[in-house]
Amino acid sequence: MTLTAGVILIGNELLSGRVEDKNLPYIAKGLGKRGIRLAECIIISDHEEVIIENINKFRQKFTYVFTTGGIGPTHDDITTASIAKAFGSEMYRDEETFHKFKEHYKERATEATFRMCDFPIGAELIENSASVAPGFRMNNVFVMAGIPRVMQSMFDAILPLLDERDPIQEISFTAFTSEGKIGIPLGEVQGCLPMVDIGSYPFMKDGNQAVTLVARSTNMQALQDAAIAIEKLLYEVEAEIIDAPDAWPQSNNI
Amino acid sequence: MTLTAGVILIGNELLSGRVEDKNLPYIAKGLGKRGIRLAECIIISDHEEVIIENINKFRQKFTYVFTTGGIGPTHDDITTASIAKAFGSEMYRDEETFHKFKEHYKERATEATFRMCDFPIGAELIENSASVAPGFRMNNVFVMAGIPRVMQSMFDAILPLLDERDPIQEISFTAFTSEGKIGIPLGEVQGCLPMVDIGSYPFMKDGNQAVTLVARSTNMQALQDAAIAIEKLLYEVEAEIIDAPDAWPQSNNI
Repeated sequence: MTLTAGVILIGNELLSGRVEDKNLPYIAKGLGKRGIRLAECIIISDHEEVIIENINKFRQKFTYVFTTGGIGPTHDDITTASIAKAFGSEMYRDEETFHKFKEHYKERATEATFRMCDFPIGAELIENSASVAPGFRMNNVFVMAGIPRVMQSMFDAILPLLDERDPIQEISFTAFTSEGKIGIPLGEVQGCLPMVDIGSYPFMKDGNQAVTLVARSTNMQALQDAAIAIEKLLYEVEAEIIDAPDAWPQSNNI
Repeated sequence: MTLTAGVILIGNELLSGRVEDKNLPYIAKGLGKRGIRLAECIIISDHEEVIIENINKFRQKFTYVFTTGGIGPTHDDITTASIAKAFGSEMYRDEETFHKFKEHYKERATEATFRMCDFPIGAELIENSASVAPGFRMNNVFVMAGIPRVMQSMFDAILPLLDERDPIQEISFTAFTSEGKIGIPLGEVQGCLPMVDIGSYPFMKDGNQAVTLVARSTNMQALQDAAIAIEKLLYEVEAEIIDAPDAWPQSNNI
C-alpha cells in the first residue's frame, strides 16, 4: 500500500505574509527519501475550530499527518489544546517533562513556560536535541514546533518511526531552451513513461530562456529510461545542456 | 461583510521540496493592504481531480480564490483545463491572444506554445506586463502563473479589480526576552483587545532569546492601544527593545 502524508502548517504569520515557511521543503525531502508521498499541505490560522476540522480531515485521509507551529508558551499557541479536542482527549501535565523544565529553566520558568509540559492524554512525546520542549504524536498525527531548527530536530526523530517504501528518487536536466520548443515531445516522453512524474520548470538565466526538467520515480529502471529519453530530446532540439545528472540511476546498483 | 480569500498553490515541485514557494507572502501582503482576510492556503499536486475538487470547495467557501502554477505550455500544465472542468466549461482558443503569440514568438511558436491561448469559455483574461501569456478569471477564481515575476505582475493587475475593506495594518516590537517571561501578561493584553490579533514569534539573536510581537487589526484605535500595552509590558519585564514602530498608528491620520 502506498504511504501518503499531509502537512498542516499552523500560524497567522504565514497567512499575513510576515513569515515565509521554511519547513515544508525539509519535511517533503525527508518523506521522499522514505518513500512516503506528500499529497497535500494546508496552511491555516491559529483558530481552534479550523485546526480541529483540518486535523480530523487529514488524519482520515492520509497515512501520516505532520503539523508545525503553535506549541509554544504564549496565548496564540493553541495547537496542542486543539489537537486534544480533535481526538476528544483531555489534557494532562507530563510530570517527567515538568521536572526537566524546572531543572532547565530554574527561576526563569513561569506558568506560561509550563504550558509546554501539557499534552493530550494518549500522546507519545517526541524528544529532540534542539529544545527541552518535546513535540508529540497522537496516533498518526505528529505535532512539531514552528521554529525551523526545532522542527528539523523533531522531524529527524520522527522519520525512523514511520513505515517506509522504496525511496522516491529524482534526476534533473537544465538546458537553455524554451518550454514551447520542448512541450510536445516532452509530453510524448511522459506518455511513454507512466511510472515517472516529469515536471518542467522554466526560468531566465543571463537573459535567456532556460528550463529544468525533473523526473521522479520509485522505479529506478523507469527513471533511467526517462533520463535517456530527456537527454535525447534535448539533443534533438539542439538545447545547450547546462546541468545533467553526474550519474544516471542504475537499476543494478539498488 | 468581511472579504475572505483562499489560495491554491499548484505544483508537484512544491510538494517534492524541490522548489520553495515565493508567491504566498506576496499575495498575502497585497490582500492585507486591501483589507481582504487570507483564510487558508492549500498546496496540491498537478492532478486533475485534486485541482477540480479544491477549486470547487474554495470558490464556495471564500470571496476570492487565487491559484498559482500550471498554466504554461508543457504536459504538466493542467490547471487551465482542470478549472474549465471545475466550472463545467468547454475550452476555446482566444483569437486575440493567438495573434499576439504569433507576432511575439514568430517561427519559434509551436503547438505547445499555443496551448497558452486556450481558456475556459467565460474566462476574463488578465493581461500582465511580464509575459505575453495572460492569466484569467472565472467568476471569483483568479488563475495566475507560478513563476514569481509573472505571478506578481498578474496579481498587481488583479488587485484593483477586487472589493476592498479597511486595510489590515500591523505594528511590531522586537525585544530580548523569552516567551516564558511574557506569556501570561501578553495573554492578558490579548484578552483585553479582541479587535487585535497579537502574535508572538521567538528566535535566537547573538545567542540570546528574542521575541517579535506583532499586532494586526483593521481598527487603528485598537492597534494603538495594543502598541501602548505591548510597550508597557516589555518595560515591566525589563526586556531590551531592539526594534519598535517608528510611529504608532494614529487613528486621526486615517
